[in-house]
Amino acid sequence: MTSIELAADVVQWCRRLAACSETPGETRRPFLSPPMREVHEALAGWMRRLGMDVRIDAAGNLRGVYAAAGSAPGAAAGRRLFIGSHLDTVPNAGAFDGVLGVVLGIALVEHLRGRRLPFAIEVVGFSDEEGVRFGVPFIGSRALTGLLDDAVLACRDLGGRTVEDAIRDFGLDPARIPDAAAPDGSLGYLEFHIEQGPILENLNLPLAVVDAVAGQTRADVWFTGQAGHAGTTPMTLRRDGLAGAAVWIAEVEREAIHTSGLVATVGRVAVEPGAANVIPGRCELSLDVRHAADDVRTDAVGRLRRAAEDIASRRGLAAAWQPRLEQPSVRLDAELSSLLARALETAGFRAHRMTSGAGHDAMIVAGRMPAGMVFLRCAGGISHHPAESVREDDVAAALEAGLGFLNALERSHG
Amino acid sequence: MTSIELAADVVQWCRRLAACSETPGETRRPFLSPPMREVHEALAGWMRRLGMDVRIDAAGNLRGVYAAAGSAPGAAAGRRLFIGSHLDTVPNAGAFDGVLGVVLGIALVEHLRGRRLPFAIEVVGFSDEEGVRFGVPFIGSRALTGLLDDAVLACRDLGGRTVEDAIRDFGLDPARIPDAAAPDGSLGYLEFHIEQGPILENLNLPLAVVDAVAGQTRADVWFTGQAGHAGTTPMTLRRDGLAGAAVWIAEVEREAIHTSGLVATVGRVAVEPGAANVIPGRCELSLDVRHAADDVRTDAVGRLRRAAEDIASRRGLAAAWQPRLEQPSVRLDAELSSLLARALETAGFRAHRMTSGAGHDAMIVAGRMPAGMVFLRCAGGISHHPAESVREDDVAAALEAGLGFLNALERSHG
Repeated sequence: MTSIELAADVVQWCRRLAACSETPGETRRPFLSPPMREVHEALAGWMRRLGMDVRIDAAGNLRGVYAAAGSAPGAAAGRRLFIGSHLDTVPNAGAFDGVLGVVLGIALVEHLRGRRLPFAIEVVGFSDEEGVRFGVPFIGSRALTGLLDDAVLACRDLGGRTVEDAIRDFGLDPARIPDAAAPDGSLGYLEFHIEQGPILENLNLPLAVVDAVAGQTRADVWFTGQAGHAGTTPMTLRRDGLAGAAVWIAEVEREAIHTSGLVATVGRVAVEPGAANVIPGRCELSLDVRHAADDVRTDAVGRLRRAAEDIASRRGLAAAWQPRLEQPSVRLDAELSSLLARALETAGFRAHRMTSGAGHDAMIVAGRMPAGMVFLRCAGGISHHPAESVREDDVAAALEAGLGFLNALERSHG
Repeated sequence: MTSIELAADVVQWCRRLAACSETPGETRRPFLSPPMREVHEALAGWMRRLGMDVRIDAAGNLRGVYAAAGSAPGAAAGRRLFIGSHLDTVPNAGAFDGVLGVVLGIALVEHLRGRRLPFAIEVVGFSDEEGVRFGVPFIGSRALTGLLDDAVLACRDLGGRTVEDAIRDFGLDPARIPDAAAPDGSLGYLEFHIEQGPILENLNLPLAVVDAVAGQTRADVWFTGQAGHAGTTPMTLRRDGLAGAAVWIAEVEREAIHTSGLVATVGRVAVEPGAANVIPGRCELSLDVRHAADDVRTDAVGRLRRAAEDIASRRGLAAAWQPRLEQPSVRLDAELSSLLARALETAGFRAHRMTSGAGHDAMIVAGRMPAGMVFLRCAGGISHHPAESVREDDVAAALEAGLGFLNALERSHG
């Protein structure tokens, strides 16, 4: 099969798996929900046909090992490259976020046409990255890195089941979670993922190498004044929480536009009391700020916090600030990234380097082994939506670059 | 009784009537709800003790006539001054909005100490001004002015009862609604009402004469862009509906600050999808603009509408505009207002003239007869809230000014 034929298969696989869903008519597949078993069975069948050794680990990750040259299937772990992404989805999801990276991993093994490398390839389909069911993300990759601790296992879903219960309900044994950890001395981890943003489409490029995952600050911000009658309170006597918030929203945008690489978003606004004829007494806002460099991000957040206080004090309002998340940026492995960049170029594509603004399993796995990541262009930058879509020729590009990367790794580890 | 003793009675009456409520522990008394009957009975008893002729008209208004000098009680309508306000309340109301004007009217009759004037005084307690039960306000004053038409009678409450049903449920006869209309040649209408704003408190004045009720424009405004991932969409590729809306909210405030007498409010904001990590694709806002001069108001609204379109077009957004209300301003009667102003001055108070930013029964009655209105200072400008409060000495000032007004009217109609 040519790359483009295999790419067509990959896209078909993703679209077929999108039908494995808790909700008919849309794609919704949280951590260890019943449709996850259908996905496991379908992909395990494909892996076995390629001669891979398949298991579901105790964290519900699908894992298939394509043994190294000269080692018997099922042999003890030697040098091993992990390729993976996640198999869970958000509600009303598209077909490609996560799943594409797993399917591409298996397709890359197929692309080897039976050829064995001097290292094993283990394809991993993580059980949870989105964190939809338990409000805590990365359950799958935490297990691979040995970080799935009791605090996470005790988290409860809306039905009151813990992560540990869910593992048992699925027929797995939480006591075996330590066996899910990757062996020491693993070669590295490679993740293909849709970009979930518009940059590659804008640059007219199929692929990019991800250098880093941006750090992130989230906070909730309140501007509190005094509610009042919209008809009877003159402008000079108002303390309008929304009017103050509006000036600050504009400042958030200005700060991000003037700080290279920074993104800053107010995504949620709630006004009290929220009636057309009442001056808002209070406005609550969410803030989300991200940048590849933590000091750039924290400096910007500091300026925005001071701006909120200044605006409030000029207007007789009170500003309040509640930190919700401080997540440092993660640099991906420089050597793997260079290998990936050369593989992209060898395959005939410009090796654009970029920061991921979204969190990914690679960010977690990077704490345990060298991790690299490749983004694929997605239509309109749309993700977490049924309109999510990738081009077959972009998937073919990823397959070619992936094969080149495996070949380069073979040469350096031959 | 002195004015200050009578004023203390007035405040006590209002506080006592606040306990007549559909909901224990708060004040909530919509159109012809059961507690309205208690209010009628209590006030009718007081009126009868003062020698007034009491009835409930077919629109549920409480009406008590203090006959003119030399006419027998129950005699045919001669020259007549109406004094009134409304007896219904919003949910979780205060004790003074509306009720104070009715109680003050009866107290003024008491303040005459049995003296008869050359004209009758009819105190009216309107059954509905707030419009809470049927979503349509001024049911009571519409009936007095002959404007309670079939369209209003057919409006339904949340329980599916029409206004007409509610009238029957209360034991009244909708066929008699025409009898509720004021006779031709009525002298005028006087309404006392709390200011519901902070101006008098700010000026340190007890009373003001209301010249006009502001006209009002309401509209809903949408800024529509494109939702996107808050981490992966660079600032330059965003079409953020909220960021555009924020600039416009600041412009609404700026327009009002720079246009004398204008008030403009964005009281309601809804963002879609409304998640902290998603760029807002759409923002919906309410706009409320008021001014005593209709052309000033409509010019300002036109500028704000163009500003919304300009902001949207600069940002790749679409702006949409849905008019919700166009209510012209109403000038109150110049002659009655002058009489009231002189009465205030004679009683020793500065006769501040002001525009009412809120609608009142006087605005409706002004279509049928000369109408005048006096505002009383209220604490913190607060209304429609249990914290609503008036000072006894301000009520005494209103009683003195009201008595002076009746005396002046007696001289001019003697």
